[in-house]
Formats: sequence, structure tokens, C-alpha cells
Amino acid sequence: MTKKLEEKTIQTTNIFNGKVVNLQVDEVTLPNGKTSKREIIKHPGAVAIIALTEENKIVFVEQYRKPLEKSLVEIPAGKLEEGEKPEVTALRELEEETGYTTDQLELVTSFYSSPGFADELLYIYFTDKLKPVEEAKSLDEDEFVELMELTLEEAEALMAEQKIHDAKTVYALMYLKQLLKK
Amino acid sequence: MTKKLEEKTIQTTNIFNGKVVNLQVDEVTLPNGKTSKREIIKHPGAVAIIALTEENKIVFVEQYRKPLEKSLVEIPAGKLEEGEKPEVTALRELEEETGYTTDQLELVTSFYSSPGFADELLYIYFTDKLKPVEEAKSLDEDEFVELMELTLEEAEALMAEQKIHDAKTVYALMYLKQLLKK
Repeated sequence: MTKKLEEKTIQTTNIFNGKVVNLQVDEVTLPNGKTSKREIIKHPGAVAIIALTEENKIVFVEQYRKPLEKSLVEIPAGKLEEGEKPEVTALRELEEETGYTTDQLELVTSFYSSPGFADELLYIYFTDKLKPVEEAKSLDEDEFVELMELTLEEAEALMAEQKIHDAKTVYALMYLKQLLKK
Repeated sequence: MTKKLEEKTIQTTNIFNGKVVNLQVDEVTLPNGKTSKREIIKHPGAVAIIALTEENKIVFVEQYRKPLEKSLVEIPAGKLEEGEKPEVTALRELEEETGYTTDQLELVTSFYSSPGFADELLYIYFTDKLKPVEEAKSLDEDEFVELMELTLEEAEALMAEQKIHDAKTVYALMYLKQLLKK
């Protein structure tokens, strides 16, 4: 790291501890010696799965997103439980949200969603080896999703009308466009 | 929208109003009639700019990211001021962070960074028509960045070592890989 950019913590104030996020405000020393405050969202991290059926259809879930007051169509995803390895979360979320499972999950990439204010790290997996789960898994009790399987063209149409409109799913479509046109 | 997924607000509790984010907790009615709570980060939205020099080098800034306690190399970006149009923010941030300006900014895409808990919408612009600003613009007083211009190959090497590791910049490299190999 370029040491001269570092911002040392003078004091951390915990503001909120929630089910999904915690919020803290750090008072920091800036590189020029002055002080400032940084608002920081702590998040456990998450996974998302790019899943292709035998017919090259992409598996999506539609889900209400309260922060936006509308539903989006997204690739299956979910938060890490404490101490859980991302590939375990990925398999669990795939099974719970889609009714599919797989023996083969490949890590495609990972990225911080919004590093200016949050520490959420998102891992993106890929599989084209889906099979039905033998015993249906239940969703979290406050989770309601609609399963959809779409061609890349159908998904691109949903992106054009901003029904697909989140970072991981926009990334997934660009990834699949390269993959499926090879 | 699929109406049956909707979560109606029973009550909103404001927890925190900051410089960058606000936090509220909404008590909601779920599709099955039960109630739950949603933690919601309100963010003004942001822009990012994929900027290519005449030599096809990509313009980056390295910046300390307090939530991660390390610096990342990212494409230039910044938050919307209240009431500001995204293309105005994009030009301002390009000028402040890089010392370049342009007459030609093209909207590439937009996406919600993390719609499960935040309403931040990020607009991504592209330009390959850079020219130096005539009069240097100053950064925000708590903002410290290091300018870098890298080839796509150099940037991909930084991504492999996770020095480039955020959603917008990972997206940008995939976009440029397609563009520059045409």
C-alpha cells in the first residue's frame, strides 16, 4: 500500500448493530495531519451465482428490494453466515433460492460493492452443471423470491428496461455474453 | 412489478444522518402478512468514469478506503451533490481527480451497488477524448488520491493481486477488454 494515503483511526463510535449491517463512525487523521470522519457500514460479505441450465438458460430470482421500493431480477445471491466459507454459502443459496444444486462451482471473481462507505465483499461463482435438489430447502422466513429462467437475449431485454439493474447481475450478463459467444 | 412481492412500510425509524449515508430501519409487512425489519442505507448516488488516454492507457486513482483499511486502485468516481445531474458530477470528478476534462462523455450503464441494503445507484461513463484542464480543480478537503495511467495488461495484473478489487473497476476492465480487442 502507498503508506502516505493511510488514514489512522483516532476514535471509533458504534452507531447501530443490525441483522444485516452495522454502522460506525471513525474519526481519522488524514495524510495532511488534519482530522475527518468516515461513515462505515460493516457487512458480512455475500455470494452470487451465475447458473446456466442445460439449455443455456440463466437462472434468476425476482425479489423485492426495500431500499429501492421495487423488485429487481437478479442472479441468486445471499449473505455469508458468520464463519461460513463463501463456497458453502453459494451452494446453500443456490439450493434455497432456485431448487438446483451442483457438484461444480467455479469462482469467477470477487469485488467490493461500494468501498467508499461499506466493506461488503461479493464473491461471484459460475456453474453450468445444475441438477435438482433431492429435498427442497426453505428460504429465510422473511425472504420471498420468484424463480425465472431466461435466455441471454431475454435477460438483455430486462436490462434495457432496468428490471435487471444491480452490479452483480449486470456483471454476470457481460460475463455470459463473452462466454456464450465464444 | 410483481405486486405480490411488495413489502409495505408500517413504520420508518431514522437512525443516523451523516455526510455520506443515512440509515433507517423500516418495519414492513411481508407478502405472507407477517412483519419484518429492513435496514436501509440512503446514499445520494455516484458516478464513475472509464477514461482512456490517446495512448490507450486507462486513468486510475489510488485512494485509501477506510472501510477496508487499505487503499484500492479504482477508476475516477464520486458522489452526486444534491440535485446534480450525473453527467455534471462525472465531469467535475474527472477534472478534480485526474486533471483531465472532456467534451464527450458517453453513458455506458448504471447499476445499484448493493440493492439488498442500500439505494446507491452508480452511473458509469466512458470517454477517450481527454484534454488537460486549463485551471487545476481542487479535491474535497478530506480527499487524497494518487493518479495512475496504466495499460489494460498492467491493470489486469493489479486485479490479479486484488489491488483493483471494486465493482465499478472490475466492470470497467471487462468493458475495456471487449472494446480494445475489437
